[in-house]
This record gives sequence, C-alpha cells and structure tokens, in this order.
Amino acid sequence: MGKQRRAEHRLSMMNRMEKEASDTPFAVNKLGRRVPLEVNGIPVVPFKGARGYRPSGVKHGPSIRSSRDYPRSGDKRVPDLTTALKKCGLKDGMVISTHHHLRNGDQVALMALQTAGRMGVKDLVWFPSAAFPCQEPVINLMKKGVVHHIEGSLNGPLGKYCSRGHMRGMGVLRSHGGRWQAIQDGEVKIDIAIIAAPTADPFGNADGSHGPSACGSLGFALADSIYAEYVIIVTDHLVPFPCYPWQIQGNNVDYVVEVESIGDPEKIVSGTTQITKSPDRLLIAEYVARFIRDAGIMKDGFSFQAGAGGIALAFVEYLKEMMRDAGVKARFVRGGSTKYLVDMLEEGLTDYILDGQTFDLVGVESIGSHPNHVATSPFTSYNFHGKGNFASLVDAVVLGATEVDINFNGNVVTHSDGLLLHGIGGWQNCLAGGCTILAVPAFRDRIPVIVDEVTTITGPGELIDVVVCERGIAINPRRKDLLRRLRNSDLPIRPIEEIQKEVRKLLGGKPEKPRISDTPVAVIKWVDGTVIDTVWQVPE
Amino acid sequence: MGKQRRAEHRLSMMNRMEKEASDTPFAVNKLGRRVPLEVNGIPVVPFKGARGYRPSGVKHGPSIRSSRDYPRSGDKRVPDLTTALKKCGLKDGMVISTHHHLRNGDQVALMALQTAGRMGVKDLVWFPSAAFPCQEPVINLMKKGVVHHIEGSLNGPLGKYCSRGHMRGMGVLRSHGGRWQAIQDGEVKIDIAIIAAPTADPFGNADGSHGPSACGSLGFALADSIYAEYVIIVTDHLVPFPCYPWQIQGNNVDYVVEVESIGDPEKIVSGTTQITKSPDRLLIAEYVARFIRDAGIMKDGFSFQAGAGGIALAFVEYLKEMMRDAGVKARFVRGGSTKYLVDMLEEGLTDYILDGQTFDLVGVESIGSHPNHVATSPFTSYNFHGKGNFASLVDAVVLGATEVDINFNGNVVTHSDGLLLHGIGGWQNCLAGGCTILAVPAFRDRIPVIVDEVTTITGPGELIDVVVCERGIAINPRRKDLLRRLRNSDLPIRPIEEIQKEVRKLLGGKPEKPRISDTPVAVIKWVDGTVIDTVWQVPE
Repeated sequence: MGKQRRAEHRLSMMNRMEKEASDTPFAVNKLGRRVPLEVNGIPVVPFKGARGYRPSGVKHGPSIRSSRDYPRSGDKRVPDLTTALKKCGLKDGMVISTHHHLRNGDQVALMALQTAGRMGVKDLVWFPSAAFPCQEPVINLMKKGVVHHIEGSLNGPLGKYCSRGHMRGMGVLRSHGGRWQAIQDGEVKIDIAIIAAPTADPFGNADGSHGPSACGSLGFALADSIYAEYVIIVTDHLVPFPCYPWQIQGNNVDYVVEVESIGDPEKIVSGTTQITKSPDRLLIAEYVARFIRDAGIMKDGFSFQAGAGGIALAFVEYLKEMMRDAGVKARFVRGGSTKYLVDMLEEGLTDYILDGQTFDLVGVESIGSHPNHVATSPFTSYNFHGKGNFASLVDAVVLGATEVDINFNGNVVTHSDGLLLHGIGGWQNCLAGGCTILAVPAFRDRIPVIVDEVTTITGPGELIDVVVCERGIAINPRRKDLLRRLRNSDLPIRPIEEIQKEVRKLLGGKPEKPRISDTPVAVIKWVDGTVIDTVWQVPE
Repeated sequence: MGKQRRAEHRLSMMNRMEKEASDTPFAVNKLGRRVPLEVNGIPVVPFKGARGYRPSGVKHGPSIRSSRDYPRSGDKRVPDLTTALKKCGLKDGMVISTHHHLRNGDQVALMALQTAGRMGVKDLVWFPSAAFPCQEPVINLMKKGVVHHIEGSLNGPLGKYCSRGHMRGMGVLRSHGGRWQAIQDGEVKIDIAIIAAPTADPFGNADGSHGPSACGSLGFALADSIYAEYVIIVTDHLVPFPCYPWQIQGNNVDYVVEVESIGDPEKIVSGTTQITKSPDRLLIAEYVARFIRDAGIMKDGFSFQAGAGGIALAFVEYLKEMMRDAGVKARFVRGGSTKYLVDMLEEGLTDYILDGQTFDLVGVESIGSHPNHVATSPFTSYNFHGKGNFASLVDAVVLGATEVDINFNGNVVTHSDGLLLHGIGGWQNCLAGGCTILAVPAFRDRIPVIVDEVTTITGPGELIDVVVCERGIAINPRRKDLLRRLRNSDLPIRPIEEIQKEVRKLLGGKPEKPRISDTPVAVIKWVDGTVIDTVWQVPE
C-alpha cells in the first residue's frame, strides 16, 4: 500500500473505531484480563503466556529508493522543518515518530508536531518511543485535532489526559523491545521519522555521544531510521562528513534540518544521578545485593542490569563492594548507564557496559570515548521477534514497580488509583533475564505496593522471580532453585502473602478499590505484540 | 512464499530455463549491447543509462522470528556444519551465500558446499560475494549436480569454466553495491547464509578484526546476515559474549559452528602489499597523483579511493608526498586498506579511513585498534538503492581496467579474448565519484588496452572521466571542467584516439577479433540491477 493510501486507510479505520468504540469486541486473555480484540481499528491478539505466541509473516519492507533521487554531493540539508515535512509529503492521518533520548529536555518532537499543525494537517498519530512532561502541549494539538492519538509510553500529564478518556484514539503502550517488534513486523508503519541528533553530517549520519546536546546512545531511533518511509534528521551540531560513530546511518535519511537547539542540556542528562538517602530504600538495595551474592549469581563472568532509580544506584554501590571483597569481575553490565556503572568499567570490575540509554554526564562522556562502553539498540537488546536478544543473557535484573501482586504479576504503568502515569521502558523486556528482582518499598504514601491483584498487569508473574522490600524478600514459588539456594541464608526470605498481611495491618486494612469505568482508554502490549492488559478510564 | 515453495519454484524456473535457453528473448540496451530479457528464469531489465532506471516496490523482508524458538542462554552452538545445515532445512535448489573476506585463503565456502554435497542435495545456487581460485573444486560440485550455477564474481578457473559454456545456469556478475541491492530488493533470496567469522561468540555476534584468521572488515556478509532466512556463523575463534565489535549481529544468526580453521592466514591477507617496480607503471601512478593535484582536487578536506594494486599503491605514495609538500590534509580515504593508507592516518594526513576490505596485516591491525579506521559495508558505501551512498562523496577514484574504449566505456571482467576472468568488486560503484580515473598500461602482452569497443561493458563511458597510461592522459570530452582546469598543465593531456593510434602503430596494426559465439554464459548487472552487458561463450 502506498503511503497516501495507507494514511487514508488508517484514517477511515480510526473513524470507524470512534463510531464503534462501544461495540469493540473483548476477550479474556491467559491472565484472566479483559482485553479488546481491536485497537484503533486494527485487530489485535490477546496475551497467550510469556512465550506462548508464535508470529507469522515477514518483516516490514519500506519502499525501495534510488540514489538517483538524492544529491550526488550527499548534502541533504533543507532550510527548515516545514520544507522537510512538505518534501516528505506530510498528509492527514500520517504516523509521525520521535525518540526520547533527550528526555525531559527534548524540543524536537513538539517542534515537529507544532510545525505540522501550522501546516494545517489533522489526525496525525504521534508515535514517540516515550512522551515526557515537557511535551504536555501535545494536549493542545490533540484538542485542535492535529494529533489524533499517541501510541507510546505516556508519562505524567499525557497519561492523565488519556486516563480521563480525552484522547480520541486508544493509547498503545509498548516496551522498548515491543516498539521495535511493532515497527519491524509492520504493525506500526511510520510515515515520517523525526530524529533529534546531537551530532550529524549533511548526509544524515547521526550520533548522540557528542555535541552541545549530547545524550549518549541514539538506539531508540534506530528502528525508525530503518523502517520509516521518510526520515528527517534535526540537529544543532553539524559536522563535515563523516559523522562517526554513525549510530543512525545517512543511507536511511532523506533530509537534514539544522536548528539552533534540539534541547535543554540540563534536562537531557542529569549532572549527576542521585543515590537514595532513605534508610528503608538503602536497606532494600543492600538486600538485593546480598541476595544476588548469596544466590551464587555474583561470580566471575556474570552480568546484571539495574536502572537509574535511587534504589538501583544504591544496589550497584553495595554489589560493587561485595565484588571487590570476593575478587569477582562481571563480563558485562547493562545500562541505562550512570557514573556508578562507568566507575565499575574504569575500575576493571566489568569488561563491558552494554548501554541502551545514558543518564548522566559521566555516562555520556564515557560512551563517547571508552571503547568498551558500547551503544546498543532495542534490536540487539530487547526485540523479542529476532533470533534471540541480549535480555535473556543477563544473569540478574533489578527493576522497580508501582504494584506487584501475590501471584508476582507486576505493574509499572498505572497507580493504584487507576491513573496511567508511567511508560514501560525496557521493563517487560528485562523480565527475560536469569533472575528478575523487583526492588520496591512495601508502601508509598500509605498505599501498599504488594496487592491482591495489580491494577494493570504489565509483566506476568511467571517471569518475576523475587520481590525485595524493606520488610523482607519474597521468592516466587516457581523458582525452587532459588528457594533452595537461599535456604540457609540470613536474609529475611518470607512468603509474599505474609509481607502483604503485615503491611496491611500496619496501614489499617485493605486499600480502597479505585473508581474505574469499563471504557478502555489504552492497552498494554506484551513483548510479542499481544495484549496483556487494558487501561480503563478513570472518572474525574 | 515459504522457503520450501520458493526453492521448488526456483528449481522449476531453472529447468525451464535450461530447456528454453535457445529461445531466450534479447533486447538491445541503451549502450547498444544485446542482453537477454530473462536470466535463470527471472525477467531482467536492460540498462537504461547510469541513472536512468527508477525502481519500484518494497525492500525484502525475511520471515519474522521469535526469541521463544532460540535458546534463552543465547548459546546457538551446534556440533558441526551438517547439523546446522539440517536444522536450516537444506533442500534441493536453495540459494547458499558466502563472503570473500578470507580471499584466496577461505576454507569455509568450499566446506559448506561439499558438506551439502555429502548430504545429497542437488541444484544449489551458490551466491558468493566473490569466488577465488581456491574454490576451483566447486567445478566438481557443478559436474556432480550439487551446484547448479554461481551468481557472483568469478575469478580465474571458475570464470573460465563459465566462459566455456559448462555451467548449467547463467553467471550473474554484480558489483559489491549491486549485490546488496539485489539482496535488499529481493531479486536474490538467500536461503542459507554461511558466514566465516574470525571471531564470534556463542550468540552469533561476529567480527573480522581479531583472531588467528583475522581479515579486517566483514562488511560483504552484512546483507546476507540481515536478509537471509537462515544464518550460520562458522568460526575458529570463539570468545565469551559479547564479541565486540559485532559487525555481524547475533540477533540475525541461527546457528554457530566451531571449526579448527576457517582459512589459511597467509592467503587471507598479504604480509605486505607490494608497490609496482615497473618504471612504466610508476610513471602512470605519478601522472595520476599530479593530475589530482593539478586539477585542484587535492585540497584540504578532500577524499580519494584507491585499490591495492601495484599502480594504486604507488599513486598513494606520490600523492602523500604532494600532500605533505602542500600542507594538505584529507577528510577521509577509502580502502581496501593497506599499510600505505594506514601510514596516512597515523601521520595525520587523513582524519578517517573508511574501509570496505582490508588487504594486509598492517590494515588488519589498524582496523582492530584505531578508532578512526572504520569498517564500512556495501550498504553505507555502495548500495545504489539507498538514500544515497558514500561513493558519490569521494572526490577522486583511481581504478584499473582490462580494456577501455574510445567512448570511455570500461571493462574489468573479460580479457580481449572474451574469457571471463575477473570480478567487478566495487569498481562500478566507485564510478559515482567526483573524478573517476582509470590508471592502465597502454598495452599488456602486446595487447592494447585502449580499444575501439570493449569486449564487455562493465561501466558506461558517461561515468569514466580520465584514462591515464604511460603514453599520456585522456580526459573524457564530457568533463569540460577538467579539460579547462588542466589547460595549462605540463601533464601529457591527449585525445584518447591519438593514444590509441600510437599504440596500434607500435604493436603493428589492429588486434585480432576474438572468436566468440552467440550463446550467452553470463550477464553483467549495473548497480541498479539492470543488465549492462552479456558475456558470450568462448569456444575451446
């Protein structure tokens, strides 16, 4: 289908969907969750278990292009975004993608959507790798009809807007790996990818590790660059060909636009990432490190992944100490990289950092200069519809959650009041690791984290091995091997129900059920493209 | 179409083709050459001018796979090639691809085809990125029916076998870029790619720059790894995950096979590459360097490409001297890399080496350690069906040829006796450069190189700017700018016809016409997949 016909088809699908929203057929998936069988006019498959669904068909192929239609000089610069979007044939109903490596400092996604708005187009689908609070003005574009709906992780205000039922289409939340899968498999066909690039050359080669707006890896934009029909590079730091490294390859790029600034450096990366100071959370971090040591996972050549949250950073510091004491060296650690992982690399406590995104200035400096600090992409790390991926090779993974239930199902997208406030990130993908650990406080603001049933299942209990909170450590009964290995440990290993009861007592009874309607506002995709759960409208 | 149905369909096409070879319809292309309209049962398009053909359709998509079908440990090793081929579903008529980075030292391509032969399959299409004399035993496999025909550059004995009309299918010669184009566009669908890897990990990440059989870049195998249905890595140097750099990504790999040796290191790369000692050839090299200087091409930030032949290497030494004298620095030079280019990088005479293949030990050492010695692939460098490529960004290109005619058409595949003895390499792709120079002796073994009409057009005269031989320099009349810039040069600029006449006189008249039949044995594809010329059978 040509891009014009495709956009028209999508529009008619979306219109039909709006009319028939109330008629949407539902099914109950393998986890007992009621999920729609059609999302934004496109049929979807209910979740069939963590490894239960086998895909068919072939990978998406974008149109074949010819060098005859590109400048022989290699200079693809055009004066501004309007020109670039016009040359890409911007039309109503198109899918516009952006990446989120500039995080809350990004200025390019909004610039592109607002430019499109001024050009008079309607009903765009915005397909970011994640949306941030700085992009709150997209709400105005949705109200005006410029943007029809968002498919992508919705953090903060945009999530709330969706939760309240204001978005015309349904939100579709995917993990980083699920986003690659959806693009690769042709579930989402990107018409125009807008790629903010901290460094680029006129041919379109682009990289994130240098320049005034340096952000580290650009891996989240890689699928967009390969599979989109049109690709626009937006940069504030043009260098002569070749821009190397070229994580984004100019051979996939149509136009290059220079702007004064692609983002606010202070909001792109933290100056320094902060370790938690809360005694409870430090205790959780210490428990996690001791668990990994005592379970025998911490041994020469092992690997682990931890995020950039306060607990995760503290965990790294505890583990580092234990590794030093035991004389143990990791083969690789997986970022989001921070100063704390870089220190490990510099100290020789790991051979490699395999880095998906870079969180602080030390991380950016390191990925731009250290040969063993390697930029990865969701293809290498997370895509479930490849011939394997790195996630299942990681020995231990430390993750957060908003809720976890007594069946070990985890939630990272909604709060207990039902509001959709967070994206999935790589969370679902990481659950493929050898030992997956949720490191969570037992309660937040007097709301328990361990519940009977999570509000929204983001990851199935069959893949979550351990829950660590300040009141104890619960091992999933499926992991008999871990239970056995920790039998004689002095760690507070306890049944999850026991911890739940203790917390309930402390907080004075069961938490109130949130007021949630039966109107779906978003779906949560599993890593294989199936629907694992539905997010329901929350009345104001 | 599934891989089994595809193989069956191809077999029936090939059988039909054998029966009807005499009925093959022909057309005369834009250069006046008679070319078949069907090759090995597949319709082809006659050449329409260097930039005359616009492709349609979408890029090839191989089958979607799922991580559920690959080991969670990431360990894809199987005991031997037989097991791997069996697991890939090896069948009659399949397309088996290999790469030629191990050059005349390669042991893997033959090992794979002979293993397939022992497994009893027939009528394979062998699709190497190039074939070398060490693979002469494939002739036996063709005689036995294991291999039906070869699509790929045919050097030496295999070319001769094809020229004599012994191959059951037609040879199809493509440039490095044309091979990427054919795979990407789905013209050639690879069933099983066999990738010899000097280093690999059990997940299938692979690289060429380290290990006992190190060969430098593995770029020629990249398209195979991305687009083939099945990919087998064969290595003699396994390292723990992650093998980094990972020019071949394990996420595209099905199986890993360890063998004792993938090749003969002495034949993989030269200890040292040799500069010509012939006074005539040294003069040609000096003329080329002076031409580039006097044409004003040699200026700060310029770029050039030269191969690893004796003249090209000598040219680099002359140019280097001139750059030093003039205080000029290149932005990048393109390899095949050798000690001579590495010296430039080390000396600061160029910012980058962008390297497609690595010819000597110094080159291998450098690409494995110097951050600005960059491994490229035919995708970045040469693929004409991308959004541009690097080849057109190179300011000056120095190439060889077996023949060039007075219309500046060039031949690199056949000799004047009609025998197909050489591959195309990147030669056609390089013709997109800013100034393309054929550096050739005026005659070889009393056979003139400048002829009325080349035996086989490999590159059209519209893209060949300068012919340099020891008797003078001919500028293509289309390049009025070059003629103007060299007007006051003391270089021997002469009309090409004048040089031709002089040589003819010296050799005592016109050369004999070769005895060539009207049976086609191979076609030469242009960079866009159209057929630029036919190779005809030469009677014994």
